[in-house]
Amino acid sequence: MEKKTLLTDCQDNMGLISKITNICYKHQLNIIHNREFVDHGNNQFFMRTELEGYFNDSTFLADLDRALPENSRRRLISSDRKRIVIMVTKEAHCLGDILVKTFDGSLDLEIAAIVGNYDTLGNLAEKFDVPFHHVSHEGLSREEHEAQLLAAVQQYQPDYVVLAKYMRILTPNFVAQFPNKIINIHHSFLPAFIGAKPYQQAFERGVKIIGATAHFVTNDLDEGPIITQDISPVDHTFSAADMAKAGRDVEKSVLSKALGLVIDDHVFVYGNRTVIL
Amino acid sequence: MEKKTLLTDCQDNMGLISKITNICYKHQLNIIHNREFVDHGNNQFFMRTELEGYFNDSTFLADLDRALPENSRRRLISSDRKRIVIMVTKEAHCLGDILVKTFDGSLDLEIAAIVGNYDTLGNLAEKFDVPFHHVSHEGLSREEHEAQLLAAVQQYQPDYVVLAKYMRILTPNFVAQFPNKIINIHHSFLPAFIGAKPYQQAFERGVKIIGATAHFVTNDLDEGPIITQDISPVDHTFSAADMAKAGRDVEKSVLSKALGLVIDDHVFVYGNRTVIL
Amino acid sequence: MEKKTLLTDCQDNMGLISKITNICYKHQLNIIHNREFVDHGNNQFFMRTELEGYFNDSTFLADLDRALPENSRRRLISSDRKRIVIMVTKEAHCLGDILVKTFDGSLDLEIAAIVGNYDTLGNLAEKFDVPFHHVSHEGLSREEHEAQLLAAVQQYQPDYVVLAKYMRILTPNFVAQFPNKIINIHHSFLPAFIGAKPYQQAFERGVKIIGATAHFVTNDLDEGPIITQDISPVDHTFSAADMAKAGRDVEKSVLSKALGLVIDDHVFVYGNRTVIL
Amino acid sequence: MEKKTLLTDCQDNMGLISKITNICYKHQLNIIHNREFVDHGNNQFFMRTELEGYFNDSTFLADLDRALPENSRRRLISSDRKRIVIMVTKEAHCLGDILVKTFDGSLDLEIAAIVGNYDTLGNLAEKFDVPFHHVSHEGLSREEHEAQLLAAVQQYQPDYVVLAKYMRILTPNFVAQFPNKIINIHHSFLPAFIGAKPYQQAFERGVKIIGATAHFVTNDLDEGPIITQDISPVDHTFSAADMAKAGRDVEKSVLSKALGLVIDDHVFVYGNRTVIL
Repeated sequence: MEKKTLLTDCQDNMGLISKITNICYKHQLNIIHNREFVDHGNNQFFMRTELEGYFNDSTFLADLDRALPENSRRRLISSDRKRIVIMVTKEAHCLGDILVKTFDGSLDLEIAAIVGNYDTLGNLAEKFDVPFHHVSHEGLSREEHEAQLLAAVQQYQPDYVVLAKYMRILTPNFVAQFPNKIINIHHSFLPAFIGAKPYQQAFERGVKIIGATAHFVTNDLDEGPIITQDISPVDHTFSAADMAKAGRDVEKSVLSKALGLVIDDHVFVYGNRTVIL
Repeated sequence: MEKKTLLTDCQDNMGLISKITNICYKHQLNIIHNREFVDHGNNQFFMRTELEGYFNDSTFLADLDRALPENSRRRLISSDRKRIVIMVTKEAHCLGDILVKTFDGSLDLEIAAIVGNYDTLGNLAEKFDVPFHHVSHEGLSREEHEAQLLAAVQQYQPDYVVLAKYMRILTPNFVAQFPNKIINIHHSFLPAFIGAKPYQQAFERGVKIIGATAHFVTNDLDEGPIITQDISPVDHTFSAADMAKAGRDVEKSVLSKALGLVIDDHVFVYGNRTVIL
Repeated sequence: MEKKTLLTDCQDNMGLISKITNICYKHQLNIIHNREFVDHGNNQFFMRTELEGYFNDSTFLADLDRALPENSRRRLISSDRKRIVIMVTKEAHCLGDILVKTFDGSLDLEIAAIVGNYDTLGNLAEKFDVPFHHVSHEGLSREEHEAQLLAAVQQYQPDYVVLAKYMRILTPNFVAQFPNKIINIHHSFLPAFIGAKPYQQAFERGVKIIGATAHFVTNDLDEGPIITQDISPVDHTFSAADMAKAGRDVEKSVLSKALGLVIDDHVFVYGNRTVIL
Repeated sequence: MEKKTLLTDCQDNMGLISKITNICYKHQLNIIHNREFVDHGNNQFFMRTELEGYFNDSTFLADLDRALPENSRRRLISSDRKRIVIMVTKEAHCLGDILVKTFDGSLDLEIAAIVGNYDTLGNLAEKFDVPFHHVSHEGLSREEHEAQLLAAVQQYQPDYVVLAKYMRILTPNFVAQFPNKIINIHHSFLPAFIGAKPYQQAFERGVKIIGATAHFVTNDLDEGPIITQDISPVDHTFSAADMAKAGRDVEKSVLSKALGLVIDDHVFVYGNRTVIL
């Protein structure tokens, strides 16, 4: 017996749930969890189906393809542990949280490597026996630096790249190598405070809540599909530095939550938004 | 074209989603929303299906009954506005919130009447042109009082009875008339602070959060199936009276939220718990 | 015995708390609550002192003025109930909440009048016996309309003007009549989604939280000092209209909370931010 | 120049703030932050004053003692880093969070040692170069085991003992060695679900929120003064094991937050409650 997850994403039609679940039934696959969503505005159907049984992937997918409308996307994903590479700069809290959660089993993933543009966090990586690559940007052009980064990351063939407070902007070329595969944590409740120094911006605006946003990276800075967001209350006693310190907890919990949703195959990317089933 | 909601609740079997959605498809009923849940521990299946089309209720239900396991419960609920009777004592905030939300369309229901054991809130009922019945408990035995209450409520044949800070305990006889039809707001995050004066209890315990719980009423005081709960932070500056005042907002939002879930047919009662789809 | 609140706002100096509380002590005024805050970045001192006793305002203030640095602001505010005028357009939820909370004593204020640019909410105002002025903008220039609005509002000499979903922009001339006296509820967590249709903007961005912001009105649209903010979670199932409906609860609770803070004299405006003591 | 924190806790009297701040002024100590609270029900005064300057502790405290009522408690606490010993059983998440936060400076403390009744977490302690003592309870009477625990802990003379999911009950003898110095994390929003298996209890009750409580340990199980609490929403899809997993994040954030408040000297214990200034 195996477990797999079927993600279906296609034009909506009457009877789709029935057709898909019929095929599961025919193949003697038991439905453990099923959730669907129809975006009626765009006539788009999404379904996530956790299945258990003896799979014959090719005949099952062939049956599905006959039943689904044209241009449907369907993925049958094995329950193998996902492999990630984490990119960092100097701040330890998001990396530390992912390391501890992977250590204690809260996140079921394999951290293949950590890549930093500073060596600050090499020490923390080493504690958890994860390879650390220091790829300094000093003295390099952006293109040269990214070529080295790309080489460092790609040797591990990661399922996802996680930017755990990686503080440099990636070029379109880098992003294009990992479409909807790069997860970033931005330290504001987007779309407020796009770009640099969001806590300084938040302080100057006199806000009463700060937040964090985990999103897929696209070529528009801080504009990619949002996976999850959360906030933390602040008040007049908080300096920009106090906000940054208070923000650490919300940043790390938002990033970990998003990562958990992604690696358990709950997230559909759809235009510039996500459907989470 | 009509809209109806099908609630199915039965023993789990392979292929149930397929069977039910097949029948919808056969009857040319379009599935607007569908959510299911399987309690694997108890092997119980729940599904909520919003349907749109031309209904032949009897043949549709007959088809379902042939397809479902024995002892299944299925209800096909029309989208008619639900009718409620609200019971109150002296506090205005929950009643006021339901009145305003019904007035502005946030809650789509009909308030048939308000019944109070004091006349304090008659004035507020009158503002919104809702009949108010003052059924005083003074000078009456519990049985006599409840007989009068029951008469006052039952003349309206309500779908649900809402206890909006009704501060007396109802007897098993009253409760038995409205099984899983009486919604109460309790001013604590149950099961903390069961019974009288929860804010006083909370104050004495020195808690840092207070809460409220909306639940169906059973014969065990404050032990019925929980629909929704929420909390509000407090600190050492709050007296018991301050907690009670701060609790009003969370009480009213929890009760309104629970009421919205119930009247839109999202709530299954299952043993002493709820499944909300 | 009377109760008054002293708000002090001046350049920071060593010994200010001591000097101010000494003067209270000398005047036999008992300190019920005291909170202070020093903005060390700007060397600015704020203190809110609730006092009880027999007040001789002029000698007390004269003593204070001798003790405080130059250019200090100090206000000794009586505990008289504040008078407000509420401005509305068509949406009932914020107005309804303030009416019910004033009715049940949760907000201790006097609603002198309600002014609407539509007559939609006249009915609701009437239920609570509050004068309603319909000042239509139709057929009028902005200046003509605001002149009429201003006349309608000013006849009541309100302490504060509350924009309870008033959906037109006020001109600098109107705003100048009520410096730091106009409280607005904006239906986003500012500075996200400034301007029109924030829920449509939020939907299009695919956010996972929506929010609301209560702020003082200045001449920069949605840029005035923030009093309080809160958020509500949303997900992919929410249309822009669903977000707007879900946002009602957070809008009304944020506005009521801000109003409570303002009328109880907890709020200092300081540059473009608030200090809340 | 030094920084120290003065905590004053005494019977309330008119002029206390004035007297205390006068003494600070006289000693040329600058007040960085000051917060006070009066429990009017019990006529008790609390003040926390962060001071900066050149301290002569003995003359300063002598001046205070002359000014304060009898039976006052005042502590002048240096800003030295606090030293803690952490006690654990098998779960890594709370320990991991404290280790990472200490590593990255979010918690400014010294972890002198970790003591476990299992050796499960020795590996994690070692990663961060903290001494780990495995004090197994197997084959020992409760008294023998606690004698060994006590020896292991006391050799480090900790300011606080932190129970980071230490799953055994401590005896009154152990607790008496560290009055108001032992901080525990309980995995429910107390007073709900006192005692063993709170997530199982929560599951059986069908709650919609779970929580965690950090409190000082007294001889009444789970009844000590609460420092901080927080909650996390759950729903019908959560098994008891799912609740336990979801609870980890709230447990660790509540414990870390409480620990931060305690080590920065914000917490007064007062009867069975805390005042946090």
